[in-house]
Amino acid sequence: MRIGIFDSGVGGLTVLREIHEALPQVDIVYIGDTARVPYGNKSKETIVRYSVELSNFLLGRGADVIVVACNTASSYSLEILEDRLSVPVMGVIEPGVRAALKLTKNRKVGVIGTLSTVNSNVYQKLLKKQGVDVVAKACPLFVPLVEEGLLKGKVAESVIEHYLSNLKSSGIDTLILGCTHYPLLKGLIGNFLEGVSVVDSASVIAQDLKDCIGNHGGRGELEIFFTDISPNLKELVRLIVGKDVGFQLADLEAIKTST
Amino acid sequence: MRIGIFDSGVGGLTVLREIHEALPQVDIVYIGDTARVPYGNKSKETIVRYSVELSNFLLGRGADVIVVACNTASSYSLEILEDRLSVPVMGVIEPGVRAALKLTKNRKVGVIGTLSTVNSNVYQKLLKKQGVDVVAKACPLFVPLVEEGLLKGKVAESVIEHYLSNLKSSGIDTLILGCTHYPLLKGLIGNFLEGVSVVDSASVIAQDLKDCIGNHGGRGELEIFFTDISPNLKELVRLIVGKDVGFQLADLEAIKTST
Repeated sequence: MRIGIFDSGVGGLTVLREIHEALPQVDIVYIGDTARVPYGNKSKETIVRYSVELSNFLLGRGADVIVVACNTASSYSLEILEDRLSVPVMGVIEPGVRAALKLTKNRKVGVIGTLSTVNSNVYQKLLKKQGVDVVAKACPLFVPLVEEGLLKGKVAESVIEHYLSNLKSSGIDTLILGCTHYPLLKGLIGNFLEGVSVVDSASVIAQDLKDCIGNHGGRGELEIFFTDISPNLKELVRLIVGKDVGFQLADLEAIKTST
Repeated sequence: MRIGIFDSGVGGLTVLREIHEALPQVDIVYIGDTARVPYGNKSKETIVRYSVELSNFLLGRGADVIVVACNTASSYSLEILEDRLSVPVMGVIEPGVRAALKLTKNRKVGVIGTLSTVNSNVYQKLLKKQGVDVVAKACPLFVPLVEEGLLKGKVAESVIEHYLSNLKSSGIDTLILGCTHYPLLKGLIGNFLEGVSVVDSASVIAQDLKDCIGNHGGRGELEIFFTDISPNLKELVRLIVGKDVGFQLADLEAIKTST
């Protein structure tokens, strides 16, 4: 059993980390599309094309299940991938919604994410179908903030205040972090939104996988690829995964021509 | 006479604007690589490949001169483009340096830009060759700040303070804005760095072009392309160019296969 995970960049490593902790014996192959990050401000057509390319790369590396660890890609590509691929495909949207529905008491839930994720209305539709009131807010600066390693301090606080002030007064009791970068700001967001339960989908996905496949064989191997390697990538990977892990460059041209 | 301008995204429109104002009769064709923005955290090889692709696109649209309106691309690709292309190629680095040398009195100059631009050391080398002390600082959050339209207010101020506090106490009397997005933050940066001359290369480039080619014929046509069109692009273009201008989608796949 080999789990394939893709993301637009490094954010999906928060999902890798949770899965690896829940299923330490299972092999994982990850690809982050750092050459083309961010996806959050790209069009649907572009995001779907990239998602298909990355999924095929993971299948080529022996993945038996694909986790789309990117909310933007999950919003736009999940159904198409489920149609086209012969292996199970898991997104991050439905697990996040499920976690929020378990926690909310007043049936008022907030969702934050990239512009594309929020504009796609996917979270809002799923939650409203369950009779829940939704307040959604795009927070485009959160991803660069995390990638800059600014996880605390004045800048992070002023950015959080800028985006979340309206949510604070909206009466929500639960907030979904609709972007895989955001768990790294979870502490600060929780402090700012006192009394609000802050949920992300990574732990739910890890639990789902555990229920489905158990801790099947393998050696707990982590194979991590990026489509571009920038000078500060090593530090960023260590920051997110919580330990030093190796990674290698994936040839983007080969990825594109193989589809 | 037709001027071709390329940039990683929308930032180079600050250069388009200055050139259009200085040479209102000259035709300009612009391409912003919004599908692959930002370049600032990508590797040299990737940036060079993208620069060649975009230059060829502009030549295909009849450009007689190429302006590389992106500091990261200028740092890494200018010499290669000068070698490979049969038309004149202008970067943004040398003009910015020239402007700073004219203004500095104490021969202490600051440079801010993306991580790639600062790490490339191009500004530092050129300035030091002239016997000038240089203080350089990468400001990775400035580009997303501008693209989010946050040109004033608490967030912009705290980000500026975060990056520029050390520069403020460094004794520089001149600061080069080494990124074409940054002129949109020029007012705030100038306020924070009281008494420091803040320069960008756009007006110098416009003057150079005027000296070289004069206000040659044409109808002052602006042809603007992007490799991806996101929902907030129209607003961003209006914000930067200062008026409503049309733009169209360039086919990235065609751009890539043509090189």
